[in-house]
Amino acid sequence: MFPNDLKKHIHKLHQKKYRKEFSEFIIEGVKGVEEALNSDLEIEAVVVEGSRREEKDISRVIALAERVREDVFFCGRNDVDTIKSADTFPGILAIARQYEVGLHDISIGEPIICLDGVRDPGNIGTIMRTADWFGIHHFLLSEDTVDPYNEKAVRSTMGSIARVKTFKSTGIAHSLEKLQKNGYSVIVLDLNGKPLKALKKRKKVIYVFGGESQGVRDEVRALADSTYTIPKIGGAESLNVAVSAAIVMSHISL
Amino acid sequence: MFPNDLKKHIHKLHQKKYRKEFSEFIIEGVKGVEEALNSDLEIEAVVVEGSRREEKDISRVIALAERVREDVFFCGRNDVDTIKSADTFPGILAIARQYEVGLHDISIGEPIICLDGVRDPGNIGTIMRTADWFGIHHFLLSEDTVDPYNEKAVRSTMGSIARVKTFKSTGIAHSLEKLQKNGYSVIVLDLNGKPLKALKKRKKVIYVFGGESQGVRDEVRALADSTYTIPKIGGAESLNVAVSAAIVMSHISL
Repeated sequence: MFPNDLKKHIHKLHQKKYRKEFSEFIIEGVKGVEEALNSDLEIEAVVVEGSRREEKDISRVIALAERVREDVFFCGRNDVDTIKSADTFPGILAIARQYEVGLHDISIGEPIICLDGVRDPGNIGTIMRTADWFGIHHFLLSEDTVDPYNEKAVRSTMGSIARVKTFKSTGIAHSLEKLQKNGYSVIVLDLNGKPLKALKKRKKVIYVFGGESQGVRDEVRALADSTYTIPKIGGAESLNVAVSAAIVMSHISL
Repeated sequence: MFPNDLKKHIHKLHQKKYRKEFSEFIIEGVKGVEEALNSDLEIEAVVVEGSRREEKDISRVIALAERVREDVFFCGRNDVDTIKSADTFPGILAIARQYEVGLHDISIGEPIICLDGVRDPGNIGTIMRTADWFGIHHFLLSEDTVDPYNEKAVRSTMGSIARVKTFKSTGIAHSLEKLQKNGYSVIVLDLNGKPLKALKKRKKVIYVFGGESQGVRDEVRALADSTYTIPKIGGAESLNVAVSAAIVMSHISL
């Protein structure tokens, strides 16, 4: 009913190297699994804690999985400790294939969010959720940005991971230059730019946000077509990167 | 050099009931302690891990503490496990008195941020940091909102805890009604209001944000003078509350 191989496989996917090797990741929770089943993601398996199969939300997702012909496995209470990623297991998870994304897949003439050295999985997940809300679905990540398929990141997307396309660069400055040659403008957000109000909405543009401690690296800063700032009125020294990204995305979207 | 009483006292302050009993809280880290020493907060003591007293940032804060005549205690490496709140101790902490804040202290004719049932300490801390950035310093918290003096919340404020005044209500609807009688408008942010763009900047206004799961309670919703929404363009089902608050605060501030 719950193959040992599958249990081991899920356990492995908690580690970045195996997520990369298998090009898979785990989505936990009713909402995440439901959105994944309704998205373009390829789902390898759905796992449900057997004792919870009759719960209203969970049984709805099981029915959905069966409708789209996904395998549903039922595990025992004693398997949960091996497969869950957080303190509490929400009763259901799915194994999904990562989208195979090249630079050309994210450069389709729509705005791109570029994260340069963002290390906190909660921040990247929140940024993806916010981007999805505003209809922005293309991400370019620097080599040192946290894995967006990290479980905490996936949880923070609240299902939006199923709708964003992410290209992880091996050389962020090089990727940005390629996109510039392709007609994209690079807009860097930092503490010393023009006021955000002056930023006009455009299509072929990459908005670059730096990580929690260092901000945008000099190499990228040097490439910027322009630099904007969220003006400070009060006392805080900086803004959280997920907050900055949200303010900029709302500015260009609304 | 490092009194046992002080060690026990710091340990107690990790718990909400003692923070309330003593009306104190802990601020960790160079930045937080430095901002606290430069603020109106009353500091009871500064504690430094002795072996780190020569570090540049830490020695600067020690000098500042001595200048403003605060007691500085040095603890040993073996004390750290008892007094730290996170996995890693940043080498310095301060015990600060909580501001004594009544409803009249936050109703001075400036905008107020009201949080109704926000449970995540990271969210409340981030909201306070963002508010401080935009020069908004008055908070009204519902009875079931997380303690803003919780250590994770304090850390997430990145020092802004020293500059915000917070009134914790024992009956949020009643507090809002009192403020309305005093000339304040209650603006609720939720998923079914007028578009944010239509929201005009005003002084005597309370912006109400609901918690992560339930949103704004019906009792408060019934009091609203008006309701606004951050329009959704893409797919996500909701926004993180710290993100919503940031978007609204930037809209009314910039």
